Amino acid sequence: MLDVSLLGTGGMMPLPYRWLTALMLRYNGKSILIDCGEGTQIALREKGWSPKPVDIICFTHYHADHISGLPGMLLAMGNAERREPLRLMGPKGLTRVVNALRVIAPELPFELQFQEIGQEEETFSFDGFQIKAFKVSHSVVCYGYSMTVERGGRFDRERALARQIPLKLWSRLQKGETIEEGGLTYTPDMVLGEPRKGLKVTYCTDTRPTGSIVSNAEGADLLILEGMYGEPEKLAKAKENRHMTMYEAASVAKAAGVPELWLTHYSPSLLRPEQYLNDVKKIFPNTVAARDGRSVELNFDEE
Amino acid sequence: MLDVSLLGTGGMMPLPYRWLTALMLRYNGKSILIDCGEGTQIALREKGWSPKPVDIICFTHYHADHISGLPGMLLAMGNAERREPLRLMGPKGLTRVVNALRVIAPELPFELQFQEIGQEEETFSFDGFQIKAFKVSHSVVCYGYSMTVERGGRFDRERALARQIPLKLWSRLQKGETIEEGGLTYTPDMVLGEPRKGLKVTYCTDTRPTGSIVSNAEGADLLILEGMYGEPEKLAKAKENRHMTMYEAASVAKAAGVPELWLTHYSPSLLRPEQYLNDVKKIFPNTVAARDGRSVELNFDEE
Repeated sequence: MLDVSLLGTGGMMPLPYRWLTALMLRYNGKSILIDCGEGTQIALREKGWSPKPVDIICFTHYHADHISGLPGMLLAMGNAERREPLRLMGPKGLTRVVNALRVIAPELPFELQFQEIGQEEETFSFDGFQIKAFKVSHSVVCYGYSMTVERGGRFDRERALARQIPLKLWSRLQKGETIEEGGLTYTPDMVLGEPRKGLKVTYCTDTRPTGSIVSNAEGADLLILEGMYGEPEKLAKAKENRHMTMYEAASVAKAAGVPELWLTHYSPSLLRPEQYLNDVKKIFPNTVAARDGRSVELNFDEE
Repeated sequence: MLDVSLLGTGGMMPLPYRWLTALMLRYNGKSILIDCGEGTQIALREKGWSPKPVDIICFTHYHADHISGLPGMLLAMGNAERREPLRLMGPKGLTRVVNALRVIAPELPFELQFQEIGQEEETFSFDGFQIKAFKVSHSVVCYGYSMTVERGGRFDRERALARQIPLKLWSRLQKGETIEEGGLTYTPDMVLGEPRKGLKVTYCTDTRPTGSIVSNAEGADLLILEGMYGEPEKLAKAKENRHMTMYEAASVAKAAGVPELWLTHYSPSLLRPEQYLNDVKKIFPNTVAARDGRSVELNFDEE
């Protein structure tokens, strides 16, 4: 079960009752946070979660509304007696930006590990997740992220029996382990079928529509995109500030062929994002104008 | 009328429904903000106020819970099209700390003017306010602040008539202006009585009790102090972390002879500050366990 929670839906500045956009993904005891603007630690607490167990924070870019909450988050982790290293991932400059912000959080009881992204696209393996960062098109270098939980093939009992694989090795092979035993080597492919469809969430804010979003969102179970503006006349402003309108987000979702789109990262001037949804749905029917805290549990297909 | 509003009452970290401690003072169209932790811009908005017209931000010290909201506040001011310079005041290091934080807010459409405090005590005049900073005793250099609105003497109509001061000059003299006219010099003391009692608020968090707080709070209409802990057994922790318990704050208020004490800057572990108030009031009866948004209008005495 992949738990997806949109902690906030605000762009540019936090508002009463609208936290800045941040996404939490939880799977198998591991937590990934994408972006950490001012107030994200409070949004987490409102869900009843502690900041302590976040394993990795991925940043899309370094505009304040996506990272201004980091010093407070780090201190909250420290106050919760975290000792495990925290991984941070983001565009080049991550170390410099985070170290500058640490002027107000100089002492932490845990290590920070930095992973800077330099390529157009890069994929990282992380404790059961594949994290793929892909460059988008904002006023500064900015990345979108696809988070994938892969799923191995189905265990083939008949093949395991036919190949006389010892019963005691079955579960380890099923988990993907290669085993040497009694002079023989047993590999998972001996007992597993073709890899099955996993779970995938693609997330992207602060960009014009790009081909990289469409191609990277393909196969996603859920696409989360900024819908900065709903007023059709704000297209020019969106272009000027390198943001996306709701209609553009819907067109990206349609091109990517995803089953569901959540909109987020609304302009502070956009008080009722739902009011534009009828027109947006003409482009992509399964669009949700997400509100803070919107969550879903994604499950592997039955089979 | 001096409008005093405690925007938040939290120490260390913001919580759902408890913003970090910050104080807003407004008098005669001017606004002073003391401290600006994560979320202070939202607390301001909850009061229905814009961040744009804040004239000066005074920092007690540079622990994150007192300054982490600055980058977002600066950007919100910029988004509101502020063009007037913003004054910032705080202990030595202010320029260095703020410039480091500006890594995520590099472009602002207004100037920042820095006033670093270097002495044990320093007084600054600011558009009708006297701002006096006084050093307290925390784990890093930290200042308390007394904000005073002075009040001139009463206009003495009999003296003005007796000295044959032209009627058209009366109101300018009353406002404190010195006027040259017809070869004569008219000064305010010719028409004004003794200065009358003004309004004074003293504010101090993040410190052990000190003589400097007692002496600087004398004559204050309102004293606002941290009451980090209410549990009597946490005195040792307060000493270790250089904070004050509610009882210590009450003792300071008693020694200073102020009419009213508000407690703030509660530990995140202190969910119901009121529960200790009965015992605190045995030391200083007019103590309020302030909650977010607590406000008062202080008025000059009748006369």
